[in-house]
Amino acid sequence: MTELEEQVANISVTEDDDFVDPWNVAGKSQTGIDYDKLIKRFGSQKIDDDLIDRFEKVTGQRAHHFLRRGIFFSHRDFHTVLNLHEAGKKFYLYTGRGPSSESMHIGHLIPFIFTKWLQDVFKVPLIIQLTDDEKVMWKDIKIEDARQMAFNNAKDIIAVGFDTSNTFIFNDLDFIGQCPAFYQNMLRVQKCVTFNQVKGIFGFGDSDVIGKITFPSIEAAPAFSTSLPFIFENKVVPCLIPCAIDQDPYFRMTRDVAARLKMPKPALLHASFLPALQGAQHKMSASDPNASIFLNDTPKQIKNKINKYAFSGGQATVEEHREKGGNTDVDISYKYLTFFLEDDERLAEIKKSYESGELLTGELKKLAIDTITPIIQDYQARRALVTDDVMKQFFAIRKIDV
Amino acid sequence: MTELEEQVANISVTEDDDFVDPWNVAGKSQTGIDYDKLIKRFGSQKIDDDLIDRFEKVTGQRAHHFLRRGIFFSHRDFHTVLNLHEAGKKFYLYTGRGPSSESMHIGHLIPFIFTKWLQDVFKVPLIIQLTDDEKVMWKDIKIEDARQMAFNNAKDIIAVGFDTSNTFIFNDLDFIGQCPAFYQNMLRVQKCVTFNQVKGIFGFGDSDVIGKITFPSIEAAPAFSTSLPFIFENKVVPCLIPCAIDQDPYFRMTRDVAARLKMPKPALLHASFLPALQGAQHKMSASDPNASIFLNDTPKQIKNKINKYAFSGGQATVEEHREKGGNTDVDISYKYLTFFLEDDERLAEIKKSYESGELLTGELKKLAIDTITPIIQDYQARRALVTDDVMKQFFAIRKIDV
Repeated sequence: MTELEEQVANISVTEDDDFVDPWNVAGKSQTGIDYDKLIKRFGSQKIDDDLIDRFEKVTGQRAHHFLRRGIFFSHRDFHTVLNLHEAGKKFYLYTGRGPSSESMHIGHLIPFIFTKWLQDVFKVPLIIQLTDDEKVMWKDIKIEDARQMAFNNAKDIIAVGFDTSNTFIFNDLDFIGQCPAFYQNMLRVQKCVTFNQVKGIFGFGDSDVIGKITFPSIEAAPAFSTSLPFIFENKVVPCLIPCAIDQDPYFRMTRDVAARLKMPKPALLHASFLPALQGAQHKMSASDPNASIFLNDTPKQIKNKINKYAFSGGQATVEEHREKGGNTDVDISYKYLTFFLEDDERLAEIKKSYESGELLTGELKKLAIDTITPIIQDYQARRALVTDDVMKQFFAIRKIDV
Repeated sequence: MTELEEQVANISVTEDDDFVDPWNVAGKSQTGIDYDKLIKRFGSQKIDDDLIDRFEKVTGQRAHHFLRRGIFFSHRDFHTVLNLHEAGKKFYLYTGRGPSSESMHIGHLIPFIFTKWLQDVFKVPLIIQLTDDEKVMWKDIKIEDARQMAFNNAKDIIAVGFDTSNTFIFNDLDFIGQCPAFYQNMLRVQKCVTFNQVKGIFGFGDSDVIGKITFPSIEAAPAFSTSLPFIFENKVVPCLIPCAIDQDPYFRMTRDVAARLKMPKPALLHASFLPALQGAQHKMSASDPNASIFLNDTPKQIKNKINKYAFSGGQATVEEHREKGGNTDVDISYKYLTFFLEDDERLAEIKKSYESGELLTGELKKLAIDTITPIIQDYQARRALVTDDVMKQFFAIRKIDV
């Protein structure tokens, strides 16, 4: 890391701070993670109105509601990407996922929905890495099972709406053994990073296995276009990474390495977490079925889960609610609407109506159910079309539109 | 490592001990490394007369003079390999080299000459790994240059007399990106070994780059036949590794990992070092041209180097030499004869004659020159035939005779 980045990243975390690293996220407050504090701790920049205005000016398009509502809340060097685009220069998008055996949930969709939108706005290629090797290293999972998880998750991701013409998807367990340039860039990264540094950035210790210690080089490599010569023909093309904020440590490291390798630093757009049904202290997690709305849930399951588990900001009785109103800062149904209800005016009405006590918790839950259910149903219709053959087209090592 | 192996490997090294690890070798005595002491420290077994007898009985062939003269002096589980062979079961040979930019020298030939002989005796396939990625990590060398070094060294190795029908050669920088099964076995190894362990075995520290920390998994992977499915078709085939003793730490680690992966532990045959011209405290080193006889040296260069630099066990004057005789324990020309003069009787005569003072230093040097020069000339004639095309045949990912 640069000295500045190092200082910033090392600002000591106190007991009162939210915990956010690539493996654990835990907020301290019912209102969720304090993202402004996280920006300070990570040393990134807030996505403010000026940046959003600049985005709209450069692209001629209205900013996505994820940007307008602070769901993507932080960035590194996004100005540089906008300048590139304004100058008619190319960049590419890179994002990824650590595959899991469970179905993906709606929280997992957020970075991919946004990435798809970015791709449509900027007309740029997209690289999606599935870190099945990471799962082998961190979990008690066999290589064959991890690969299968990657393929299943790839289908779930493809159903967001990606296009084979400009999207390349790979899983590490197969791809690293198919692309010498990728392995060689892993080595370039591994040569720039000491154990001390990964200890500081990721909290690795002496009793960690060496596969964990070296893994950050594998998540770094796709941020360099020379890792994918069949796409970029050994040209140096800058990279923009939309991802959840918990992945930032990997890319802080990658940006430092980029400087040392005299390659462009990847730019970043950071997403906040979709809260768990039970409350905003936790992100939605696939390992707790009652905390999550899965992409393969039926309308009935969605309805039941929201009605039963979605933490309410309403009052104990109807009378009290009518009098004091609901609290949208902690209400999970309302939070989900901020993610999934695109209509700004309608959202403002709902907020006003709930906070005034006019709208009851049951009614707010119904609005959330009626918003999320058709989104999931549309998604499921697309998902049904993603056959093995379609998936293989995305994984084929080939030239894509750049 | 097993507990026993760990205890043995950790026997503390005192200031008086020879230093031997994969990166440095330095003896304390003019007679060279104390190999018996090294056997105790490393926890390996001495190659004794019983083992040599058993070898000759099982194979029906006379043991190589490298075995008879203790040049290959130590082993792990070689009995197991002989039992396999006796039972008509298959194994394979694996050896390798960290490529260098300089020409290879005659010391580098020793493990390869012996490996070729083993291959002829046992009729088994051979895998040769060129760790060009290791050189990138340890030296200030670019990836392109390291690859080129590997290709040049491969030609030097091929000229020992290997056959494309049963020998596969690869360089890591290309091959790891061409064989997912190899990368997957690297991961299996990486999952079994902690930073603490590589710290203990290799002396890595917190300020070492993560590429060094993970490298041992790359030298371990070829010891598992499942890393090379195009040769072994995913069958589990045991492995015998002939190598210089300084590589043993890698394979102590590999043997421990093998046990945890429920794979056969590789067996080992350990070579001693060909001494430098200046004396047996140091092994021959390519980085000091005056200490080494290179494979591309002319007869004149060989003659001049031995006459000028080969450390002599003779006395200061002819008169004193006639009276006291020469010391074959420290005389480098004599040591080279033990490596390269196959005729046991002739060697015994020379020893006797030199120690009695009858044979003078100049005469002994001439014998060494006359023994080594034709070996190098024959080698050079074979080397001239190793074209790029020949080399590529060895590197082709293909089925070989097993």
